Amino acid sequence: MKTILVIGAGRSSSALINYLLNNSSSCNWTISVGDVNLKQAQDRVGTHDRGTAFVFDINNQQQREAEITNADLVVSMLPAFMHGQVAEDCVRFGKHLVTASYVSDKMKSLHEEALAKGVILLNEIGLDPGIDHMSAMQIIDEIRSKGGVMNAFYSYCGGLVAPESNDNPWGYKFSWNPRNVILAGQGTAQYIRDGKYRYLPYQRLFSEAKSITVEGHGKFDAYANRDSLSYRTVYGLESIPTMLRGTLRHHGFCEAWNVFVQLGITDDTWRLEDSANMTYADLVAALLPEGKGTLRERLAKLAGVEAGGSVMDMVEWTGVLSNVKIAMDSATPAQALQKLLEEKWKLKQGDKDMVVMQHIFEFTLNGKQQTIISSLVVKGDDEVNTAMAKTVGLPAAIAIKMILTGKYSSAGVVVPVKKDLYDPVLNELKEYGIVFSETHQ
Amino acid sequence: MKTILVIGAGRSSSALINYLLNNSSSCNWTISVGDVNLKQAQDRVGTHDRGTAFVFDINNQQQREAEITNADLVVSMLPAFMHGQVAEDCVRFGKHLVTASYVSDKMKSLHEEALAKGVILLNEIGLDPGIDHMSAMQIIDEIRSKGGVMNAFYSYCGGLVAPESNDNPWGYKFSWNPRNVILAGQGTAQYIRDGKYRYLPYQRLFSEAKSITVEGHGKFDAYANRDSLSYRTVYGLESIPTMLRGTLRHHGFCEAWNVFVQLGITDDTWRLEDSANMTYADLVAALLPEGKGTLRERLAKLAGVEAGGSVMDMVEWTGVLSNVKIAMDSATPAQALQKLLEEKWKLKQGDKDMVVMQHIFEFTLNGKQQTIISSLVVKGDDEVNTAMAKTVGLPAAIAIKMILTGKYSSAGVVVPVKKDLYDPVLNELKEYGIVFSETHQ
Repeated sequence: MKTILVIGAGRSSSALINYLLNNSSSCNWTISVGDVNLKQAQDRVGTHDRGTAFVFDINNQQQREAEITNADLVVSMLPAFMHGQVAEDCVRFGKHLVTASYVSDKMKSLHEEALAKGVILLNEIGLDPGIDHMSAMQIIDEIRSKGGVMNAFYSYCGGLVAPESNDNPWGYKFSWNPRNVILAGQGTAQYIRDGKYRYLPYQRLFSEAKSITVEGHGKFDAYANRDSLSYRTVYGLESIPTMLRGTLRHHGFCEAWNVFVQLGITDDTWRLEDSANMTYADLVAALLPEGKGTLRERLAKLAGVEAGGSVMDMVEWTGVLSNVKIAMDSATPAQALQKLLEEKWKLKQGDKDMVVMQHIFEFTLNGKQQTIISSLVVKGDDEVNTAMAKTVGLPAAIAIKMILTGKYSSAGVVVPVKKDLYDPVLNELKEYGIVFSETHQ
Repeated sequence: MKTILVIGAGRSSSALINYLLNNSSSCNWTISVGDVNLKQAQDRVGTHDRGTAFVFDINNQQQREAEITNADLVVSMLPAFMHGQVAEDCVRFGKHLVTASYVSDKMKSLHEEALAKGVILLNEIGLDPGIDHMSAMQIIDEIRSKGGVMNAFYSYCGGLVAPESNDNPWGYKFSWNPRNVILAGQGTAQYIRDGKYRYLPYQRLFSEAKSITVEGHGKFDAYANRDSLSYRTVYGLESIPTMLRGTLRHHGFCEAWNVFVQLGITDDTWRLEDSANMTYADLVAALLPEGKGTLRERLAKLAGVEAGGSVMDMVEWTGVLSNVKIAMDSATPAQALQKLLEEKWKLKQGDKDMVVMQHIFEFTLNGKQQTIISSLVVKGDDEVNTAMAKTVGLPAAIAIKMILTGKYSSAGVVVPVKKDLYDPVLNELKEYGIVFSETHQ
């Protein structure tokens, strides 16, 4: 019998844990689910006799070492910054580790030792990063195997609300970490187009969003991710002239979000002196240039949108112009905004979320310019079994089964960009309705 | 005989070291000047028989401890982040410390121990912070002693080039750390007006600069400093409705600098991938939205200024639109810009810099609204004996003499906001031409 230790039972872990429990009898596994919040771990495990839920504190060294020693494989669904210590212990005790997070410098530094010990540190095997890498590499490798040369690669992904569950003008509800959504795009987006670097500062990121169409699902806004350049090496596309990774939002979202960016209310670097007693209207007034008119008019003027238009309707809908108190001590503007939106953008009972991904491959093959557009739309079952949880958790879960049943072996720090991993994972994902559709031009 | 250890012989230390050397015979002092750059220390000391110059490495613990043990008083002219270790040693060995830098959290944490040991950690006794505190507190204390109530306090300071030495359209040359000038204002400016908080994000800081007039010297641009709020407590003005500290530039500077801010070229948080081979024109093109026209036209459009106007003349004058290579490895945009401006904004032989400070005090006294405007303009002698070096170094030097001759005694972390320090220092500064002029309305 093998033991899988799952650390972190947050909202993205439901599909992963279900998959592991469903395979636990046939594979002879026990699944230990640890979380700081016992109830959360218990909810994920339910009454399954091969699952156990327990309180797990990542900072309790004794517990961490004991649980990792006792496991055959560890999967960490914790926030990325917490993986480092777990990875170190996994290498020390010779245990495989699976995460859906980006490879950190700390993780990278463990590569040689993991390699020497035959330990797999498999990362970036979720949705984005994860399914994006696998589905892109499957097509890129195929194009190259036929002798094609890549000219451009665009890749977009977004976690949204399904149209049938949408009841707000933003077309958005939180299906993952709200903080990351509020802070999204801070920094400078870097990509390359026609062989020239393109740098897009945060202050212009949302006003320069582009529109893309996903067949059967209409138009979406796309804004550039911070880092598109480093993926050239990861994908073996060192000399591609154009490469851009972006994030998708409901059409119209970016123009309205830009109002918040211009106002400065997404800033997380300083704290309000009196946020416990301040109202949202006070905060907006304090951030606006002095002037005449209503808050709505002044904010519209600042952002260069119509005071009576739909963009300002979206802004006003959030409650940011209201006399509701922020009622948090020493909040950053971003934290104050997050508090407001967490209520407004909450998935309600029965609500379905929606994950949308699109890759565009432009290449030359047999002397002809060709384009492949590959798109994925996945909807959640409800507010717990979300599309986000499925698309983040199932790739990791499938990879875990492959590792523990000997169908995949490797060592060191690995990301899923090779055929021996992406083919079987993408194949099994189809059974769960995670299927890309392709159009060729 | 007493020994004064001066750490750091950079461009702001010349007047300080001259003052100490000039007083060394009458006071029976020796002045030890340590710097990583021996030549720099030697240049400051010259052939004076009571001065010695030596190579000093702040990270050499043995040397640091030996020199501090050997001294009666230490003055650190190093960058502020280096004071912490020196301050710790000073407290440990029971030596007074003087700096012209803001009190850091580290410095603050040494207060109790310094107090117990009778050690003075005197900080913020330069120009800004320093002369600003002293000259403001002298007037505020006087207003209050007469029963006046402060309604508003504005305080501005800038280190500029004197008009007679100005040969560029920005009216600016570097008289202190260029890096701080490039990064100035990053963060969010916080002040209070009419009892309401005002928050001004960096992206709007320079476009919302105001104009102020200094009698006899014309108009200057003023942009808000990051922190005006914490000075309410320092100055005992906890309930003042309006308080703003700002930085002065030549009139017209801020509108042109705003072009750089909007472009994103003052960003110091990320590194260019190929800055060794990239030209400045490449960098500007990479930061601009795609579009038609010359670089100058596209940049003017982005910033909302006339392509053929004087603002764009100022921008073009810097060389930022030229095909000159950046020729630095892994530069941040801010570093690339700094490299360009260090050449362009260099004080030439014989050039005079100019320090300008203005305080505006609005108060109610005897039932009447009154205003005092207090202004200071100091010019340098040449590119070495700058106004900046005089106004930063002389207050510290005078305070050192007061401490070592027993005319000032205190303990713990101190800033110069009390009469026993500001009166004699401001008085002696007059001998060096550092004199405020006042108008009352």
